[in-house]
Amino acid sequence: MTEHASVPEKLDPQECLQLISPGGIGRVAFNDPGGPAILPVNYVLRDNSVIFRTAAGGTLDMGLRTGMAGVDFKVAFEVDRFDEAEHTGWSVVVRGGAHLVSSPEEQAELEKAEVHPWAGGDRHLYVKVAATEVTGRRVGNGS
Amino acid sequence: MTEHASVPEKLDPQECLQLISPGGIGRVAFNDPGGPAILPVNYVLRDNSVIFRTAAGGTLDMGLRTGMAGVDFKVAFEVDRFDEAEHTGWSVVVRGGAHLVSSPEEQAELEKAEVHPWAGGDRHLYVKVAATEVTGRRVGNGS
Repeated sequence: MTEHASVPEKLDPQECLQLISPGGIGRVAFNDPGGPAILPVNYVLRDNSVIFRTAAGGTLDMGLRTGMAGVDFKVAFEVDRFDEAEHTGWSVVVRGGAHLVSSPEEQAELEKAEVHPWAGGDRHLYVKVAATEVTGRRVGNGS
Repeated sequence: MTEHASVPEKLDPQECLQLISPGGIGRVAFNDPGGPAILPVNYVLRDNSVIFRTAAGGTLDMGLRTGMAGVDFKVAFEVDRFDEAEHTGWSVVVRGGAHLVSSPEEQAELEKAEVHPWAGGDRHLYVKVAATEVTGRRVGNGS
């Protein structure tokens, strides 16, 4: 094993939020009845909250509806950019409780913000992650 | 919301394994005491198993050691390739139990296979995911 990769540098939360502020593709990790699950989603960052869409009736939606009944539905949301050839890049993880956006006003606003689902189809639910922890690290000179 | 993204096509397990066979960067989702967690890792695929390295003493390592005591330590491992401009791409998720590779013979073999950690540092533990479920989907003409 060659140890050519450099030791990762921790990023502060403000730097993390700045890195993920352009939006794009991230991955959300959550638990469904079979254990840990992970889904790529297209997200936007609004007022320091991660927002993405999901399909009604999917395992994430079902978990979120349980969460709405009073149980905090925890997720981890990750965004990264890597240059595999150069061994540089960064990764940011937002952890917190997720909930469905239920207010019609907020939904209408998000329609305007054009939160595109990557997978198309019937993804009419907006999910918002209330971050309780924002961490990140950078390797090499990745920016 | 424009619905220009195409409906995703489900991929069969064999196609999924073929897509992730070159190795590279994936993300592993698991649970630590704070809930769902997610980490980007550099992986290889060997004999249809996902193998990557992690740091001794990290939350993943600690969870895995609990798993070694007889409790199945479940993870989800995801790899994707997307063209954000073209709205095409694919995502593959491998779910199953993860365990630390403890046999010195297998460790030596993996050293030769050069499973590089993306983050450098002391990542001397090899983790193997015994897949119980392999799913994937493709959007657009992504390959």
